[in-house]
Amino acid sequence: MTYCLAAAMNEGLVFASDSRTNAGVDHINTYPKLHPFIWEGDRILVLLSAGNLATTQAVVTQLEREALDGGPLRKAQYMAEAAEHVGQVSQRIQARHAPEGPGASSVSLEASFILGGQIGAQDPALFLIYPQGNFITCSEEQPFLQIGETKYGKPILDRIISPAVSLEDAARCALVSIDSTMRSNLSVGPPVDLMLYRRDTLERPRSLRYKLNSPYFASIRKQWGEGLRRIFDDLPRFDWEK
Amino acid sequence: MTYCLAAAMNEGLVFASDSRTNAGVDHINTYPKLHPFIWEGDRILVLLSAGNLATTQAVVTQLEREALDGGPLRKAQYMAEAAEHVGQVSQRIQARHAPEGPGASSVSLEASFILGGQIGAQDPALFLIYPQGNFITCSEEQPFLQIGETKYGKPILDRIISPAVSLEDAARCALVSIDSTMRSNLSVGPPVDLMLYRRDTLERPRSLRYKLNSPYFASIRKQWGEGLRRIFDDLPRFDWEK
Repeated sequence: MTYCLAAAMNEGLVFASDSRTNAGVDHINTYPKLHPFIWEGDRILVLLSAGNLATTQAVVTQLEREALDGGPLRKAQYMAEAAEHVGQVSQRIQARHAPEGPGASSVSLEASFILGGQIGAQDPALFLIYPQGNFITCSEEQPFLQIGETKYGKPILDRIISPAVSLEDAARCALVSIDSTMRSNLSVGPPVDLMLYRRDTLERPRSLRYKLNSPYFASIRKQWGEGLRRIFDDLPRFDWEK
Repeated sequence: MTYCLAAAMNEGLVFASDSRTNAGVDHINTYPKLHPFIWEGDRILVLLSAGNLATTQAVVTQLEREALDGGPLRKAQYMAEAAEHVGQVSQRIQARHAPEGPGASSVSLEASFILGGQIGAQDPALFLIYPQGNFITCSEEQPFLQIGETKYGKPILDRIISPAVSLEDAARCALVSIDSTMRSNLSVGPPVDLMLYRRDTLERPRSLRYKLNSPYFASIRKQWGEGLRRIFDDLPRFDWEK
């Protein structure tokens, strides 16, 4: 599995992902799931990927190759156009390798993506692209999107993320969300990739990569764990305990 | 959906469940999912149910009817024997209504159960019974079991629950776990049922039911939410923020 998320705030966009891939417990590997496509001054796009590793790698490779030649991500007039292209590439690659006929393998080739970024003076945007190639954007009420192993880390996002939150707070919240997921699910693992894009800069996003023992991530993990323990211990007692 | 959990500590057992049932968003109802079977001085059993509502209701009804006549739950020599019986009843009821032949409906009749309790002087025990009728117990390392919508509320259990935790702390942790799940998933809803069984008493467990505005549950929810916000705001800053 995988866990990736992205959030859209007034100040800009935050992207985060784990890096563990697994095809069965005896085939665990590390592979980046956060892929920037950057044309400074013109457009900044970031793609997060989850699902079948052969599909996601093929999609990313094709998009990167196209990007060198000024392909669709480079030329798209709107973020939604770029999202549509990612969906089409994903669909085509899945269809090319789809199992056929009786006795075909039951391996799922499906992959999901989050594409976010800003084109020129337009508003930054964020899309979740389904395996079927169609996509949704996020809402003001819940301005984040998740793919992969999304449930463990959702409660803290539900509580913290809103359009008014600063980029840094959203990034910290993403780290906490990924940490909680890693603790509860072995298939999500370090290092953690983080990207902060400040709205209207059209500059390369601030990019960070944390291992478990990277000082900043380790201090977040420690303080969060100790803090949870403290607020838990301070919760009101049942009346018979008094 | 549903969310039920049970935890086994040195001091005894804790059971908790939400009460929302839904068969599609236009058929939402409230139904208890925590079912005690009590013969004070001899044995205390508590059953938690999740899955197809017709299956779980039929299983619980049959077990209750049998219990009146001193049936298998009353007579089982070991908790595992009682768990096996629950599994068999569940299997039989699923099989009786299983869709057959082409064009059969694709509704899942599956149900899962947690059965916990104590028989005489034996150790208290906890089992998770799968739709297939087989079952597992929990381990010292992770002394809790969950059924239904389990992921949102798992991180806090992973952090807090251990055999050394008091019954009351485990019950509070269960309330926090269910609260987090209700906030992130509409299909899990109040009231929340809670039962605390103190080891070797063989007495009726302490039983509580909370609505969202029940004073104790409301104070837990409020303090937990505010506490999370506080520890989040106190997390260390990125170096460029200083």
